[in-house]
Amino acid sequence: MHLRKSLLVLASFMSVSAWAMKPLPNKVPVPADNPMTPQKIELGKMLYFEPRLSIDGTISCNSCHNVMADGADGRAVGAGVRGQRGGRGSPTVWNSAFHTVQFWDGRAASLEDQAKGPITNPIEMGMPHHDIVIGRINQIPGYVAAFKKAFPKDKNPVNTDNLAKAIATFERTLITPNAPFDKYMKGNKKALNPQQIRGMKLVEEIGCTSCHSGEIFAGEGLKMGEGNYQPFPQIPGSKFDKMYDITADLGRYEVTKKVEDKNHWRVPTWRNVALTAPYFHNGKVKTLDEAVRVMAKTQLDADLNDGQVADIVAFLNSLTGEFPKQTMPRLPVTENFSITPDP
Amino acid sequence: MHLRKSLLVLASFMSVSAWAMKPLPNKVPVPADNPMTPQKIELGKMLYFEPRLSIDGTISCNSCHNVMADGADGRAVGAGVRGQRGGRGSPTVWNSAFHTVQFWDGRAASLEDQAKGPITNPIEMGMPHHDIVIGRINQIPGYVAAFKKAFPKDKNPVNTDNLAKAIATFERTLITPNAPFDKYMKGNKKALNPQQIRGMKLVEEIGCTSCHSGEIFAGEGLKMGEGNYQPFPQIPGSKFDKMYDITADLGRYEVTKKVEDKNHWRVPTWRNVALTAPYFHNGKVKTLDEAVRVMAKTQLDADLNDGQVADIVAFLNSLTGEFPKQTMPRLPVTENFSITPDP
Repeated sequence: MHLRKSLLVLASFMSVSAWAMKPLPNKVPVPADNPMTPQKIELGKMLYFEPRLSIDGTISCNSCHNVMADGADGRAVGAGVRGQRGGRGSPTVWNSAFHTVQFWDGRAASLEDQAKGPITNPIEMGMPHHDIVIGRINQIPGYVAAFKKAFPKDKNPVNTDNLAKAIATFERTLITPNAPFDKYMKGNKKALNPQQIRGMKLVEEIGCTSCHSGEIFAGEGLKMGEGNYQPFPQIPGSKFDKMYDITADLGRYEVTKKVEDKNHWRVPTWRNVALTAPYFHNGKVKTLDEAVRVMAKTQLDADLNDGQVADIVAFLNSLTGEFPKQTMPRLPVTENFSITPDP
Repeated sequence: MHLRKSLLVLASFMSVSAWAMKPLPNKVPVPADNPMTPQKIELGKMLYFEPRLSIDGTISCNSCHNVMADGADGRAVGAGVRGQRGGRGSPTVWNSAFHTVQFWDGRAASLEDQAKGPITNPIEMGMPHHDIVIGRINQIPGYVAAFKKAFPKDKNPVNTDNLAKAIATFERTLITPNAPFDKYMKGNKKALNPQQIRGMKLVEEIGCTSCHSGEIFAGEGLKMGEGNYQPFPQIPGSKFDKMYDITADLGRYEVTKKVEDKNHWRVPTWRNVALTAPYFHNGKVKTLDEAVRVMAKTQLDADLNDGQVADIVAFLNSLTGEFPKQTMPRLPVTENFSITPDP
């Protein structure tokens, strides 16, 4: 048994190196119709931090996807305008450029598509229509100028597609390279400690990496727009289903209305997962060690012991990358009046 | 009349140059017991952007005093946790270091005192007690380390006074020098256009600068902790009292309970006033030209014509300074769990 396990671990570890896990690339995928430019990044950063994109001027993209922190909000579910709460947790914006589909249910095929959603979601930023957003932006001379700079070939650059393109372009700068895991994979064998290496072998051995593979551990070999959807729970009936209300939200089914998509979800990234508690689509699991236990049981029917859980958590902690230093944007002003609406 | 007026203008203008209006100093006043250090500035910046200082993790200092914008929020009154609205507008944080007292009613004698207020205000950040704030910070290793660095001589550096000292220190970096007015006062006579110069003379001539004097146009010759309080309206009974509900909030009286303080207010700064609409303690006046009309009537019994209003607004627009480029803070993380509470 001991020998067999060792061989299994060895085999797994070889395959790890060979394909299942990959270091974060230095470059993000960029769509052909939205090349990155400094002007577009700067405009996108302004818009990302712009509370005037919300109905009452209280919520910006950064409110729920805080780039000064983990790229999310530390809450079980998002918080929108007028004290409203969302139904799902805010996924991190860090490294979201590597995801091939966006949102928990993959309903956006690109960051551009994603950026439009929350603005007109009544419980998020609450704008009744994108035309109203564009109307506001047109009242702010600094934005009109910034759109012209970012989209110099467009006759009427201030429009929703360009707004989404700019935000997506800024988001493509939000990557966290050089995690201890990445350094290890690039040859620095001291970058992971023995416990982390045990955890790395274990996630392959018990099968986590059959879904959590690739550069951001969310699946690999996928084209942009193509989702890696998996059931959660894979094996229904464990105590966790009820304990954490796992099945109430039907996930991908709510988008497709196909029976086979019930309780299916886009596989989330493991990158910076140590920082993005609480866990899962409803944020009901508060700690990473419990999240590991839940996943092992519901997806792989594995009952992990505390040592195994600790090893996996240690490995997942090695996926916390380096967050780049950033400059603050200046939000364009209106002189002598405010366009921020009063509620 | 024409000659008399010209002489008056000349006399006023001489006194303008001589004393009433001053360029913004390059250095802010710093209290002896809270010297500025890079470590304290960095910690203060982190805390300033820290939503975990609010009960439900939704509101930071920056939510209402946005340093990426005008240092306020563009709303009539502040917006706090759980969708609550405040009773007064958010004053700008830019150049607040030059104010000798803080808040509309001057109830804080320093930025340090001010910083503590909103955190435990139930309709702002909503924390029940400062001990709970400190308890949270102690759960975040990065903050504990940052407090140690910022206050290396303190045995127990994580405390409310140091939190306030750090935030105040960051706020002392938020100054906007080199407004066109400042350049003009320092000798560049082309920095103001003829209309702005007319407006500059007019504010002295009609008496605005009897209160709005000095470096930030909020009074001068005051020691730190000493307020420049003035009645608003000075001359009750104009149509504006009702139109903008000027007298309902008793201002300074709510702090002192002295009859003579009824409807008295700290004189607000004119620095960047073009950007901080809407105006006055209750934010009921939406544009700067109307604010000028209201002030002239309620304080000086002057009925300005449209040309005079436009000239004064043009001058006030010359008080918009240069906003320094800033780096974003990184907010310290908690690994494997979140301390952001769910509502």
